[in-house]
Amino acid sequence: MLSKNDIKNIRSLGMKKSRTEKGLFIAEGHKLVEELLKSFECVLVAGLDEWIGSHPRIKAARIESVSAETLRQASLLQTPQDVIAIFRIPQTRSDMGIASKELVLALDTVQDPGNLGTIVRIADWFGIKHIFCSQGTADIFNPKAVQATMGAMARVNVHYVNLGKELAQIAGKVPVFGTFLDGNDMYDCRLSENGIIVMGNEGNGISHEVGKFVSDRIFIPNWPKGAETSESLNVAVATSVICAEFRRRARQS
Amino acid sequence: MLSKNDIKNIRSLGMKKSRTEKGLFIAEGHKLVEELLKSFECVLVAGLDEWIGSHPRIKAARIESVSAETLRQASLLQTPQDVIAIFRIPQTRSDMGIASKELVLALDTVQDPGNLGTIVRIADWFGIKHIFCSQGTADIFNPKAVQATMGAMARVNVHYVNLGKELAQIAGKVPVFGTFLDGNDMYDCRLSENGIIVMGNEGNGISHEVGKFVSDRIFIPNWPKGAETSESLNVAVATSVICAEFRRRARQS
Repeated sequence: MLSKNDIKNIRSLGMKKSRTEKGLFIAEGHKLVEELLKSFECVLVAGLDEWIGSHPRIKAARIESVSAETLRQASLLQTPQDVIAIFRIPQTRSDMGIASKELVLALDTVQDPGNLGTIVRIADWFGIKHIFCSQGTADIFNPKAVQATMGAMARVNVHYVNLGKELAQIAGKVPVFGTFLDGNDMYDCRLSENGIIVMGNEGNGISHEVGKFVSDRIFIPNWPKGAETSESLNVAVATSVICAEFRRRARQS
Repeated sequence: MLSKNDIKNIRSLGMKKSRTEKGLFIAEGHKLVEELLKSFECVLVAGLDEWIGSHPRIKAARIESVSAETLRQASLLQTPQDVIAIFRIPQTRSDMGIASKELVLALDTVQDPGNLGTIVRIADWFGIKHIFCSQGTADIFNPKAVQATMGAMARVNVHYVNLGKELAQIAGKVPVFGTFLDGNDMYDCRLSENGIIVMGNEGNGISHEVGKFVSDRIFIPNWPKGAETSESLNVAVATSVICAEFRRRARQS
């Protein structure tokens, strides 16, 4: 059973302030919860009888069988799912030095939680293990971001850093790619197997503060060249096209 | 000024039934409205004084300067914008025969309006002019889809058809590509400059009814090969990676 207070506490995790204070985040739905149980410390699972019954080996500090009505009350989704779980926010630390060995992403104020979650899912697909976010980027533990990762956040580390400062330390030592509307056609560019790919804000792109550390300005060409088209691609969509091309090149080399 | 009845009529366009009855759809925000004014017949523009004042050449049957409070009442968005416009839904007709000359997309029950809108924006970027949707696909005139196109729907034609029936007529005459988790690595496949790219439902992929007409089963490889990763990519993200690769090949040939 969940008390009124439990429900209040669960729902409070929709707010950043509460997540930070409690060090917890919420995930809903069986696919997502099953993925996250593999990687995160779970403090509470509340699910329908059937779900709890069919998952006898869950590792969680507290497990509750609840009614559909209770799930509905606790849920932050418009369409409540069969299970809600609360996980502990991990303390991860890494610095951008890792970009000398592998490809990483840096997000400069990507504000939409759905875009952020989708980017984590893309990173997972293309074997990118670390994403460095500016402090102005959406919170990966925002429920909308968590849902959009579809569980990929179990395999991708998301770090919040002072992006300008970190880049200042590593710039010149590794290639720093950034997308700009006046960048070079990426199919004509040399792409590396390590380094940093910077993606910018939905409306404003990459900020000056971060952009000055970009060594390789690239651009996804539209088709046919010079045709009238949209101003830009969505940031998650652009991330996927770029990551796919980096990996295609790596296969060839 | 807008009457209470005007506001009620505008808000009703959030519902498919009302859009179909009235033959109208709604768009909000200056960027989007400005793009759509180029291509769609506009029956009403309601904007803040400043916006109306700075757009003296709007072609619309009715133009109203309204207060921020009125816009808030009429808006379907959480954060109302500076202008709302109502456009007539165009009567477009095309059949898939066009795929013998150019690349088109076919969507098999893509249900999320945001995904659909994003796919239209991607199609626009990569010069795809026609998208054929199954009847179960989201409505492109759903306000969420309209917003997600960012205006790209002004340049891309979206048709609702019986996908199985249309494919039955054209299959064998043009290549029909479809993404399947057990498809062939797309980087090893021959990709053409005409034909149909079928994208499937968010949860279930391509249906059997449509899948049986697919001549080329393709797959976006994850990286590194065989690594544990997400089950799949978001459908809009997958569409972008595939369209980008088709166009990259065409540049080379």
